Amino acid sequence: MQALVSIIMGSTSDLPVMEAAAKFLNDMEVPFEINALSAHRTPEKVEEFAKAAHGRGIRVIIAAAGMAAHLPGVIAAMTSVPVIGVPVKASLEGLDSLLAIVQMPPGIPVATVGINASMNSAILATEILAASDSALYQKLIKFKEDLKIKIVKANEELAQVKYDFKVG
Amino acid sequence: MQALVSIIMGSTSDLPVMEAAAKFLNDMEVPFEINALSAHRTPEKVEEFAKAAHGRGIRVIIAAAGMAAHLPGVIAAMTSVPVIGVPVKASLEGLDSLLAIVQMPPGIPVATVGINASMNSAILATEILAASDSALYQKLIKFKEDLKIKIVKANEELAQVKYDFKVG
Amino acid sequence: MQALVSIIMGSTSDLPVMEAAAKFLNDMEVPFEINALSAHRTPEKVEEFAKAAHGRGIRVIIAAAGMAAHLPGVIAAMTSVPVIGVPVKASLEGLDSLLAIVQMPPGIPVATVGINASMNSAILATEILAASDSALYQKLIKFKEDLKIKIVKANEELAQVKYDFKVG
Amino acid sequence: MQALVSIIMGSTSDLPVMEAAAKFLNDMEVPFEINALSAHRTPEKVEEFAKAAHGRGIRVIIAAAGMAAHLPGVIAAMTSVPVIGVPVKASLEGLDSLLAIVQMPPGIPVATVGINASMNSAILATEILAASDSALYQKLIKFKEDLKIKIVKANEELAQVKYDFKVG
Amino acid sequence: MQALVSIIMGSTSDLPVMEAAAKFLNDMEVPFEINALSAHRTPEKVEEFAKAAHGRGIRVIIAAAGMAAHLPGVIAAMTSVPVIGVPVKASLEGLDSLLAIVQMPPGIPVATVGINASMNSAILATEILAASDSALYQKLIKFKEDLKIKIVKANEELAQVKYDFKVG
Amino acid sequence: MQALVSIIMGSTSDLPVMEAAAKFLNDMEVPFEINALSAHRTPEKVEEFAKAAHGRGIRVIIAAAGMAAHLPGVIAAMTSVPVIGVPVKASLEGLDSLLAIVQMPPGIPVATVGINASMNSAILATEILAASDSALYQKLIKFKEDLKIKIVKANEELAQVKYDFKVG
Amino acid sequence: MQALVSIIMGSTSDLPVMEAAAKFLNDMEVPFEINALSAHRTPEKVEEFAKAAHGRGIRVIIAAAGMAAHLPGVIAAMTSVPVIGVPVKASLEGLDSLLAIVQMPPGIPVATVGINASMNSAILATEILAASDSALYQKLIKFKEDLKIKIVKANEELAQVKYDFKVG
Amino acid sequence: MQALVSIIMGSTSDLPVMEAAAKFLNDMEVPFEINALSAHRTPEKVEEFAKAAHGRGIRVIIAAAGMAAHLPGVIAAMTSVPVIGVPVKASLEGLDSLLAIVQMPPGIPVATVGINASMNSAILATEILAASDSALYQKLIKFKEDLKIKIVKANEELAQVKYDFKVG
Repeated sequence: MQALVSIIMGSTSDLPVMEAAAKFLNDMEVPFEINALSAHRTPEKVEEFAKAAHGRGIRVIIAAAGMAAHLPGVIAAMTSVPVIGVPVKASLEGLDSLLAIVQMPPGIPVATVGINASMNSAILATEILAASDSALYQKLIKFKEDLKIKIVKANEELAQVKYDFKVG
Repeated sequence: MQALVSIIMGSTSDLPVMEAAAKFLNDMEVPFEINALSAHRTPEKVEEFAKAAHGRGIRVIIAAAGMAAHLPGVIAAMTSVPVIGVPVKASLEGLDSLLAIVQMPPGIPVATVGINASMNSAILATEILAASDSALYQKLIKFKEDLKIKIVKANEELAQVKYDFKVG
Repeated sequence: MQALVSIIMGSTSDLPVMEAAAKFLNDMEVPFEINALSAHRTPEKVEEFAKAAHGRGIRVIIAAAGMAAHLPGVIAAMTSVPVIGVPVKASLEGLDSLLAIVQMPPGIPVATVGINASMNSAILATEILAASDSALYQKLIKFKEDLKIKIVKANEELAQVKYDFKVG
Repeated sequence: MQALVSIIMGSTSDLPVMEAAAKFLNDMEVPFEINALSAHRTPEKVEEFAKAAHGRGIRVIIAAAGMAAHLPGVIAAMTSVPVIGVPVKASLEGLDSLLAIVQMPPGIPVATVGINASMNSAILATEILAASDSALYQKLIKFKEDLKIKIVKANEELAQVKYDFKVG
Repeated sequence: MQALVSIIMGSTSDLPVMEAAAKFLNDMEVPFEINALSAHRTPEKVEEFAKAAHGRGIRVIIAAAGMAAHLPGVIAAMTSVPVIGVPVKASLEGLDSLLAIVQMPPGIPVATVGINASMNSAILATEILAASDSALYQKLIKFKEDLKIKIVKANEELAQVKYDFKVG
Repeated sequence: MQALVSIIMGSTSDLPVMEAAAKFLNDMEVPFEINALSAHRTPEKVEEFAKAAHGRGIRVIIAAAGMAAHLPGVIAAMTSVPVIGVPVKASLEGLDSLLAIVQMPPGIPVATVGINASMNSAILATEILAASDSALYQKLIKFKEDLKIKIVKANEELAQVKYDFKVG
Repeated sequence: MQALVSIIMGSTSDLPVMEAAAKFLNDMEVPFEINALSAHRTPEKVEEFAKAAHGRGIRVIIAAAGMAAHLPGVIAAMTSVPVIGVPVKASLEGLDSLLAIVQMPPGIPVATVGINASMNSAILATEILAASDSALYQKLIKFKEDLKIKIVKANEELAQVKYDFKVG
Repeated sequence: MQALVSIIMGSTSDLPVMEAAAKFLNDMEVPFEINALSAHRTPEKVEEFAKAAHGRGIRVIIAAAGMAAHLPGVIAAMTSVPVIGVPVKASLEGLDSLLAIVQMPPGIPVATVGINASMNSAILATEILAASDSALYQKLIKFKEDLKIKIVKANEELAQVKYDFKVG
């Protein structure tokens, strides 16, 4: 099935971080692909990828990178497919990659999520696809409802915990 | 015409920052609306807005806020329409609003752009709409081409400047 | 017994941090309750909680959250019961949650304590209650006296340590 | 009339920042006093003040200071009256005073508000008093309602602005 | 005369910062060229430039950029000519551009100088050329000697100043 | 009269910052000298200065520098006369010079004062001299008393201000 | 023997950090004492200590504290004996305690050393005493010479290491 | 064989970080030497080294140091051989050493690489030598080609991984 979302990592060492994104897309039955491409070490591959993405049917790109994280911005410069950037924590608590991804110059935005926020990048990608796919929108609504139920249940379990205290 | 993009500001004092977003959407002929709603001062209005957005036809929300900027996250918690967050610089060079917008917990992403990056929020919104609208995608391509031409021309003017120097 | 203090956590994973708050309130015999409510995942529950709190007799709310920590501010926006915010360290050494809690806009204050400063949130809650309850005020005075005695005693023990050195 | 709130500044140069706090308390008809006392330059005055505060009827202390801002913590160490700390921006964008106020050790909390957040310190003080004064609680509710009306009105004015654009 | 050093700016708005570099190279009679090329807006031009640089006789590249400053790293990825990066201050006091330039991944170094340190980039470029050009090395030595003389002279003038004081 | 304190600046541009130090020493009648010596541009002068200081009767050195501020540490490495470091704000709000001065490796301390804290460097120098000079110690005590009187008086003036408010 | 240096810690938990200071003073045969006194939990003890220090013969005070580290500044406010501040790393990598110690207001300096820089605080204390004690000054010179010899020897051992490589 | 690159560390404890630099130079058959010299503990050795380097045939210096890292700047002040600075992470996540190395004053640049970026310092040194040695330039090109092949191969292995998911 044709991938709609393409996950790109700056290095295969980012795979443990990005697995949650793959898992979420899989759970939502959104067709996707995963590749490792370095903005610095394989620039031609990145260019080739970015320029062909829209034509191949890719509708959202998730790009993860650490340190001076150029990958998301470099891809965004060569396509008009929306690019979601995931700052990977590799040094300085991830602050370097966050700033290197989010502070893009006028003209070339990257939709940045939190440090190591792999699952959130996949949810955002799904929201973007769901903007023109109401079945997918309903799935997302259901996912958020399930999250709520989990929280409410956790709270009920917490209610038990508190009776260990004398008062309250 | 039905707005597809909704720009929300935490305060009308953010209007000067957000004008570039409105201008870009206008130039691209993307129907949009602008409102000021405070996550903290008018929470019910925010809830009402967020819950009705999808039904009213809004496909992307741009939310701008400063300081402990909760507006984008609070809206994202109540809709599955993609939310773009614009950190507005009001204190600490904008670092507080950047972190308060981008570091969302698992389950509720906000697509964060740079500090005061108003135009980029509008470009990103257009890219999201263009994921299922090829005419709009072509407009974006044209916009990026025009940007390039502007840069190339600026460089040519720069070429004149350098002859003031003896060598080079 | 009717709770006067309500401890709210963004996630049950914050429980280990917040146990010291529960323990302190318990020791001071201040009636309290603990719940997990997410500003982002269960916004309606949070709204319901915040709006009912004063009517139910809650006089102080302690709200703990990490990352883009909106919970304390979101609650403060919907009640005039004083809200104490506890930034939980989950990323960036806790700086993100500190700024997302403390830098509230004019009109909606959150009484912020230090990163992971769970016990201090409970002491502050007790001080607030003690502003109109002199018996409780005396208990607090006694608590601080006991702290002093502990420090003075520790110092006396330290006095032994130093004789391992030749001089002094 | 006996002051219930005492505003203390580290230096008279903090007065322009703290005027908004005085104004708010005045508007709410909360009896208050203002003094300048330096933790470092007049430590005995600070001690005398802190130890006498509760006996004089002070129920909340607002302490503002900049740089290595010790004043709020030093006062909190000598009373069990709740102390609200206002970090004043004097260097490093106010980050130094924020950290020097909020990161108190276990046992001695300071209820910290945002950098230069003078009005918020007064609202918080009023909320603390209102915890045992329902007339004051009603005044606060009214204040927040008025804020909302102001925001809603500003939004209506914004609605006019947008018709300058072709679309929306 | 064939340029040995190529100064590239991310935007012509960086020209005021980079003039000091041009002036220094001019003073040292090092042949150079200046161009504006954006990593994000004209990526093909950047690639073309980077790949042709060595063949055209360029021996050092100075690349200046602000915010999420990718230009120096993107060029370094496509050539083995040494690349000197100049972080330009445009937001966050220049910390974003510093980190986005200096924190390059293993394999692709950028020789980073201080924020807005335009003259230093040119001195470093000259030192690199001087590694195989002893005449140029002598010029650099002379430049540093002149700097010393200027400092020593300034100190002598300072010696006059101090007699305004009673003692010393 | 033989100088006991030597003020060294990295650049004559630091003079406006360091004047308060000179003024304080002058007021206290502590013999001093002022010089500009750059750790980087006149390293031999710095070495000569540092090695001769103790022999010439210098008992405390005050060294001020900005950015990558090496001057205080470089001097401290070549003498056992106590060196007070003054971080001068030139970029990054002075954080770079603060860290470059205070974070010295084991073996070579620099007594660091606050950013641009020129007067404090002179007070500290005087305290060091006063450790073995009781007349000077008395002068310092008097200086602090005068500071207190000034604060107390400012507070009395503040007492007038507050009567502009209805309550308090 | 009468202590000349007094080491004060905010908490006995700082003892492992401060042992290196005690060891150095011991090695240099400088009479010293160690105590734990909390600025916040035992303020009267701190005041008593600070006011009596000079009269008891203390010539330098070393004060160590973490987080919102007020101890060094609070002591400095009540004596003119030079106070050396040691920021202890307890949260935020120690940045909070560094700023809370070093950024003192005009009039009350604290001689700040690096984060956890216990030994350096003791060397600085010895340098201050040595300003009027030439025998001690000679000991310090010898200590620095021994450090050098150690480094030179370590380098010689390093020379062996490098022959594992083919070239160099 | 005469060393062309000299690696200097502030302390032998930096050796584990700097081994990757030595290994890279060895692999590229670039003659090099390694030494430990402290800017603060052996300043005369550093001066002697810096002044003799060019005459001994050293063409590039790599200087690594942590904390208030003065070594690279101190060497750069005494030679016109290009100096590459490697900030070693020892405290504050390495931010202190990064700023203390990169933020050099006008006149004395240090070519700074990333925190602990040992291999990159060696690649940069090789690029500098290759500016006048085309055989070495070809080796670098080959090294970057090998890096690319490694990345491409890793991506192919990643292609296998993704088939564990249902879709994509």
